[in-house]
Amino acid sequence: MTHLASLFDSGLTSDIVFSSPLLATAPSSENAPMILAGVLLSLVFIYLASKLGGELSKLVDLPPVLGELVAGVIVGVSALHLLVFPETGAVASDSVVITILQKIAGLNPESIGKVFASESEVISVLAELGVIILLFEIGLESDLRELQKVGSRAAIVAVVGVVAPFVAGTVGLMLIFGMPTIPAVFAGAALTATSIGITSKVLSELGQLKSTEGQIIVGAAVIDDILGIIVLAVVASLAKTGEVDILNLVYLIISATAFLLGSIFLGKFFNQSFVAIAEKLQTRGKLVIPALIFAFSMAFLANAIHLEAILGAFAAGLVLDETDKRRELDQQVIPIADILVPIFFVSVGARVDLSVLNPTSADNRQGLVIAAFLIVVAIIGKVITGWAVFGQEKINRLAIGIGMIPRGEVGLVFAGIGAASGVLDKPLQAAIIIMVILTTFVAPPLLRFAFKQEAGKVAENQI
Amino acid sequence: MTHLASLFDSGLTSDIVFSSPLLATAPSSENAPMILAGVLLSLVFIYLASKLGGELSKLVDLPPVLGELVAGVIVGVSALHLLVFPETGAVASDSVVITILQKIAGLNPESIGKVFASESEVISVLAELGVIILLFEIGLESDLRELQKVGSRAAIVAVVGVVAPFVAGTVGLMLIFGMPTIPAVFAGAALTATSIGITSKVLSELGQLKSTEGQIIVGAAVIDDILGIIVLAVVASLAKTGEVDILNLVYLIISATAFLLGSIFLGKFFNQSFVAIAEKLQTRGKLVIPALIFAFSMAFLANAIHLEAILGAFAAGLVLDETDKRRELDQQVIPIADILVPIFFVSVGARVDLSVLNPTSADNRQGLVIAAFLIVVAIIGKVITGWAVFGQEKINRLAIGIGMIPRGEVGLVFAGIGAASGVLDKPLQAAIIIMVILTTFVAPPLLRFAFKQEAGKVAENQI
Repeated sequence: MTHLASLFDSGLTSDIVFSSPLLATAPSSENAPMILAGVLLSLVFIYLASKLGGELSKLVDLPPVLGELVAGVIVGVSALHLLVFPETGAVASDSVVITILQKIAGLNPESIGKVFASESEVISVLAELGVIILLFEIGLESDLRELQKVGSRAAIVAVVGVVAPFVAGTVGLMLIFGMPTIPAVFAGAALTATSIGITSKVLSELGQLKSTEGQIIVGAAVIDDILGIIVLAVVASLAKTGEVDILNLVYLIISATAFLLGSIFLGKFFNQSFVAIAEKLQTRGKLVIPALIFAFSMAFLANAIHLEAILGAFAAGLVLDETDKRRELDQQVIPIADILVPIFFVSVGARVDLSVLNPTSADNRQGLVIAAFLIVVAIIGKVITGWAVFGQEKINRLAIGIGMIPRGEVGLVFAGIGAASGVLDKPLQAAIIIMVILTTFVAPPLLRFAFKQEAGKVAENQI
Repeated sequence: MTHLASLFDSGLTSDIVFSSPLLATAPSSENAPMILAGVLLSLVFIYLASKLGGELSKLVDLPPVLGELVAGVIVGVSALHLLVFPETGAVASDSVVITILQKIAGLNPESIGKVFASESEVISVLAELGVIILLFEIGLESDLRELQKVGSRAAIVAVVGVVAPFVAGTVGLMLIFGMPTIPAVFAGAALTATSIGITSKVLSELGQLKSTEGQIIVGAAVIDDILGIIVLAVVASLAKTGEVDILNLVYLIISATAFLLGSIFLGKFFNQSFVAIAEKLQTRGKLVIPALIFAFSMAFLANAIHLEAILGAFAAGLVLDETDKRRELDQQVIPIADILVPIFFVSVGARVDLSVLNPTSADNRQGLVIAAFLIVVAIIGKVITGWAVFGQEKINRLAIGIGMIPRGEVGLVFAGIGAASGVLDKPLQAAIIIMVILTTFVAPPLLRFAFKQEAGKVAENQI
């Protein structure tokens, strides 16, 4: 009966509002029942989309996550408008969820905007929690010793995968398209990103997460994530002031390195106390709650020192992977990931605006030409990273290179910052977005192909 | 790297905002990284409180949920301010979470309020999802046939538990305290509530959910929830216009009955298709995602027809309990409940403002006297319901009566609406809140006592 308040938003006694300062009244503001209704309906749409997309994708032998992304595009701003977000320029009346609520409850005009904003906020945070849990799970499934073994090779893959597309993209845009330096640098920077979420999910679906190639890709994607934070800081500062903030750069490099090494080092001591605590607890959630306290604390810490929350969650997973409770914990994290992770992938798809592909707009046509160039650089610049790996001869170099291709949500962040700072003109913005979309959607099937192709040849290298 | 944006909120390039209408940029607004950080930190506090409280409670042989509620009070508005909500009158500067974010990130004054509001909104919705999952789980653990068997007895318990405290409370306040009719009726109405969440959680912790007594209590609490909606509609309309809206009353009674009976009836057909669908799916979450689609749809539907979302979730659980997948589903819902349900109980505790117990204020002193009367009526009025059960002689009547005692969040909703509508003066408001707090906190240990006391005598009645 927590939503008795719904009676009062429906016109029955609509001037009674919950604002008594004396006490905790309804669980939230006067719009709370409508916000909850909006979140429930959005989740139903998200889950339906993720299952339909994932299953269809699986049926035609493609990675399920690709289907979830495509289903996200279909329910999102590009088509059905079942799931839209204010940041894509959508307003409340664009949202089918809000339209349905409106029909049912007759919201007043002031409430509509608030309900839309709050409902979108909640779904966005749930999506963030989804990718945090995903990276925690990937950390749990990764082997720290194996990662340390591939560490230097992963670092080379990451560095080559940042330098090659950046140089080729920037120089190409300046020489071929006669672009000024700053926008060219920005577009080059957008080419450096790798979506660790999409790549690691595909690897996990292919059962390749624990292969040497899989661990090199995950390790490289983590390092790429850190490099990406640094590159973005540099280009954003360049775009804003025309110069680079060296002090901030040094701070970022030191804090990122200290965080990852520090958490792994301290984790070895923490492991023992975690198991000891979990074994003493007697109430429900005795394993999963302490694990989440650790994961969320690390995610918060990473966020607080201007790194990414997902890096903290990944480090937490790596640390807990070393404990005896690993298998039991893994088992319990699965259903939690199952309900949160699809929210992330469907949301990523839903935010993609396919209208940039429409060739009837002049900006888009010019953008499509630049996009063709960026896509070539984006793919070649990452695929060659596989051949930067030294040592082992029988490694699946193609798979490693392809694993680094998807730009995903990370590429969209670059494009968004560039657009907002006024550095990128419309055609270049559109070109970057098209590059991001294409690299994201092409990588999962290609990765599957690469692993199948060389499955026999490299079997002896796998763990 | 979804939170690259955090760099830009930290003063580095703070005038670059994410507002490009062309494309989906950052996963949310410019405050998104801070909102996520706030949610992560709040969740860490909530989980720490729930585990500390739950485990300590278990150590002294009390139900863990009582410890979670008390821990919520300690971290909430009454003491530590680690978890505060705008609806209790708290502002951003009251929140320790916001103060920490402020110190770390140097939020600008405009952002602070927005981050506080959004972060609280997200935690409130997570708490709501928690009680929805709890009732879904209770539904899964309840047996529909057993509930039907106890149906008429549960109905009698519910009706007596509404009528007795309402009449005794209203008449008592008018005769003993000389109170006018409308506030007396409102206070009487607040006495009718039963918190299904708290009661069913305690039953589950005591392993008594499937006993005849447990099923009567759950059934009666569900019916009480529906009666509560009707009672509230009546008194709110009375408070507002001085008369009762008969049409709305009839609508509520019909829709509630139709919803519960209809969902159970249709559920028998839906069962088969659910199992058939779940067996065809091949991707991750193949059981839990369809189950949540069903549960959230039912919760949305219940909400949409002005019932409570938790009633829909309970009905969905009852329906799926009848399938072959029941056991497997139950297993997967446990970790999900483990991470969401504590958010609800800690939040309920955190919203309780203990300052109404301070006897140095004159209003509170008067309130304490009225509270003493209300508490007596609240407890006796519910305890006698056990003796309203006909039929079986060896049933644990005391346990049934005690099971109906906790008013929990439901009582707070009544008090809040009364306060906001101006019907209740300060002493009466305080008295109702004290009654709610006391009945909520006293019921779990009493219930445990009642079941232990008569455990031997009624063993033969248990399933």
